[in-house]
Amino acid sequence: MTHKYEALLQDLKQRLFEIYDLNGIASLLHWDQTTYMPPAATQARARHISLISRLAHERLVDPEIGKLLDALRPYEESLPYDHDDAALIRVTRKDYERATRVPSSFLAEFLAHQARTYDVWTKARPANDFSMVAPYLEKTLEYSRQLANFFPGYEHIADPLIDFSDEGMKVSILRPLFAQLREALVPLVKAISAKTPPDDRFLYRYYPEPDQLRFGLDVIRAFGFDFERGRQDKTHHPFMIRLSLYDVRITTRVKEHDLSEAMFSTFHESGHGMYEQGINPDYEGTPLAGGTSSGVHESQSRTWENYVGRSRPFWEHFFPKLQSIFPEQLADVDVEAFYRAVNKVQPSLIRTDADEVTYNLHVIIRFELELALLEGTLSVRELPDAWRAKYREYLGVEPPDDKDGVLQDVHWYGGHIGGAFQGYTLGNIIAAQFFEKALEEHPEIPDEIRQGRFDTLHGWLREQVYQHGRKYTPRELIRRVTGQDLTLEPYLRYLRRKYGELYQLDLDNE
Amino acid sequence: MTHKYEALLQDLKQRLFEIYDLNGIASLLHWDQTTYMPPAATQARARHISLISRLAHERLVDPEIGKLLDALRPYEESLPYDHDDAALIRVTRKDYERATRVPSSFLAEFLAHQARTYDVWTKARPANDFSMVAPYLEKTLEYSRQLANFFPGYEHIADPLIDFSDEGMKVSILRPLFAQLREALVPLVKAISAKTPPDDRFLYRYYPEPDQLRFGLDVIRAFGFDFERGRQDKTHHPFMIRLSLYDVRITTRVKEHDLSEAMFSTFHESGHGMYEQGINPDYEGTPLAGGTSSGVHESQSRTWENYVGRSRPFWEHFFPKLQSIFPEQLADVDVEAFYRAVNKVQPSLIRTDADEVTYNLHVIIRFELELALLEGTLSVRELPDAWRAKYREYLGVEPPDDKDGVLQDVHWYGGHIGGAFQGYTLGNIIAAQFFEKALEEHPEIPDEIRQGRFDTLHGWLREQVYQHGRKYTPRELIRRVTGQDLTLEPYLRYLRRKYGELYQLDLDNE
Repeated sequence: MTHKYEALLQDLKQRLFEIYDLNGIASLLHWDQTTYMPPAATQARARHISLISRLAHERLVDPEIGKLLDALRPYEESLPYDHDDAALIRVTRKDYERATRVPSSFLAEFLAHQARTYDVWTKARPANDFSMVAPYLEKTLEYSRQLANFFPGYEHIADPLIDFSDEGMKVSILRPLFAQLREALVPLVKAISAKTPPDDRFLYRYYPEPDQLRFGLDVIRAFGFDFERGRQDKTHHPFMIRLSLYDVRITTRVKEHDLSEAMFSTFHESGHGMYEQGINPDYEGTPLAGGTSSGVHESQSRTWENYVGRSRPFWEHFFPKLQSIFPEQLADVDVEAFYRAVNKVQPSLIRTDADEVTYNLHVIIRFELELALLEGTLSVRELPDAWRAKYREYLGVEPPDDKDGVLQDVHWYGGHIGGAFQGYTLGNIIAAQFFEKALEEHPEIPDEIRQGRFDTLHGWLREQVYQHGRKYTPRELIRRVTGQDLTLEPYLRYLRRKYGELYQLDLDNE
Repeated sequence: MTHKYEALLQDLKQRLFEIYDLNGIASLLHWDQTTYMPPAATQARARHISLISRLAHERLVDPEIGKLLDALRPYEESLPYDHDDAALIRVTRKDYERATRVPSSFLAEFLAHQARTYDVWTKARPANDFSMVAPYLEKTLEYSRQLANFFPGYEHIADPLIDFSDEGMKVSILRPLFAQLREALVPLVKAISAKTPPDDRFLYRYYPEPDQLRFGLDVIRAFGFDFERGRQDKTHHPFMIRLSLYDVRITTRVKEHDLSEAMFSTFHESGHGMYEQGINPDYEGTPLAGGTSSGVHESQSRTWENYVGRSRPFWEHFFPKLQSIFPEQLADVDVEAFYRAVNKVQPSLIRTDADEVTYNLHVIIRFELELALLEGTLSVRELPDAWRAKYREYLGVEPPDDKDGVLQDVHWYGGHIGGAFQGYTLGNIIAAQFFEKALEEHPEIPDEIRQGRFDTLHGWLREQVYQHGRKYTPRELIRRVTGQDLTLEPYLRYLRRKYGELYQLDLDNE
């Protein structure tokens, strides 16, 4: 590297580090807001967050960044695609272009609208009154279309919105993929529903909070979550947040009459956390330090929650430990009954409570409705009915009200319409692709899990996925790791094998 | 107010609000660092804090602030001294001048030196090796003199340094005041030391942490600490910190074999916290939102810790409650024995562990040594011996090593020499002046305390002291509240009455 490029890159990196640190500070403000902040501090905290976000945004859209990126282009082009500097310049350019295309005045206006809409939604949901929030949602739809139009040249108006969180995952890819998944899932759910469900009532006995938390922490420590560089706290809606690569925090919530709640949310968030903790430490302070997409992130939470945490080998090791913590509550339960209970499939109304099989149908419903809204084939007024119709058709259940129907998720009411949900199902699909590959390369993984050891799996994921951060796009990463493009087959194989066995179904296992 | 001044004031206030919020954010970064932050995050956190401090400092020294202050001077001069706008402009000017007189390059250099010195001190103290840190301290002394010299026109070189935390408290006031106090305390301590000490061994039985914390929280809730606008967490060295007037946090530490530790630090920090929570909410976002000096702040922590929390009426109410929480540990103790135990006077080596009477001698030793260092009559090399000599002379004890001698406090090793300690003793003196005045105006206060009620005292302090924030300098405030200047008499009366009775001393009570 010539001296000239070195100085330019240094300048760029210094600016990026400040933006990175401002974002880290904003993360602490968010974390504290949802964990320990005293109630009266709400307004001051909103000011703090908006101040830091503004400072970070100003620095990102600074034309000097654009000039540096232009000046560095010859250097970037002289490097192999895989070179860290090339990746840094490439990803920074993407962020810079994304941020500068949207006028600040539009952004401020839309954010203010989102805050108002969220506020109305917090009242409309308990009041079960969609009409309260409908005019706001209409405006959100309008803003969402405008937002997409700042990125002209798309195939589908949802593409730019999806691209924000799942780069390169266009409607032309997702629509057929999700349709194929739906066509496989609907009969699978029907077949399962015809069977006798496992008895899971023992999961709803009394499990004291401190013991639940201790068990969860013991498990994720065994997974490899690094408590030198992270911690767990309680919150209302569990999440993972990164302050820096040396400070990755997860949260959970505990229900003393529902053993699954804290346990699986802990496994889930630990997966998000280990992804961030596993990023190449050289990327600290740069836009490369982060998960590459919402779908790939979700693939890691789902890996540890479901592929590991709801697997038979896992419980063969951990059920005796759980039983020793809760000897009375689990006295009459054996590992097989426990395994079946935590994998009970039951069509329900609420996405976040859904099991591994039906979960994707919740997501697909939202994805299809988002597209219809953006395309203009569905109006906001018609949305509640369309919601009910899809639940009836895909899941065989019908929400008795909008509260647990169209009003249930915050996404549309606190953000934009389009791109909000696909990551959840992409996560399941990608997790299956990665997990199948890991098993192919390391067939010993299930045996290790049966012994409570996770280093091979964790090491493989760190090597193949985590370390790269945002260096590769999701599609590049999937191809690198699996040698294939995004494909549904491993996921369908996984579901059919696992649930075919659990529910003794007569399926074509290919 | 003319339209012109309104616009100028609005501009100033908006700038100040941003500085205020940046400081609030820095407070959260500090709070988290000492409570929940995972260990590996140290370096990232240092970056975060230095970034936010820089952004706040840049905004404070912005010449635009100076121009606004100049332009607002006629408006300020048209207002009565007590007017909030006058106070805002006056206090902002003081902060602006203080910040702009010290060149940024000097400040950065000194701060970097302080960080290095602190780092060496953390190794020198456990190693009991003053010589490791002595060269650094010599440099600190040099920097401290330079810092003072940015504020020419002082009577004593320590005055500008004292002024940073205790405005207007010059050496010409403090030296005779502290000498008078020392002359009263040394014989008092001698007289007490000749008596049989009360038995306080029961304080060192096993007191489980959750019960200790619960009791402390119950007491400070009764004091009037507002948990809607504050919280308590555990830390290593207890402190109070304000994120905004709606978010004032205190911390404590618990020793399960020392009942006093968490209890009195909780009372102490709650006093700091109630001061900040009691500031006029109109001052939010301005430099007026804060305690007016280190001494006045300490007067409030000492009021609730000692004047209330170590008083007989307090324990007449709370001892039965404490006993019901710790029935076995306190089975053989009565309220009088407990009251005597928590007021045991015993010369010791460590300032932070000292009782109410000997505490000031620890402070005076440091104050005298600081002055001698700055005046050049004492060298850094001679400091450890000088320290030992003063402990022998004033307290009758001699540190066996420097670890618990000259190396014990962080102040000189993490900051500047001069102005670091006087606030602690000023706090005790001012607390006595305020408390005597409160009792004079409300003789019912002790009876209310005996019933576990604190509203009259808390209300009086809020009215007289808390609401004003930084509107008045400490000397103005003392005169407003008590009608007198800073004076030792009420404090000596308090000590002689309380400890004369406790130790059955034959004292001239004036």
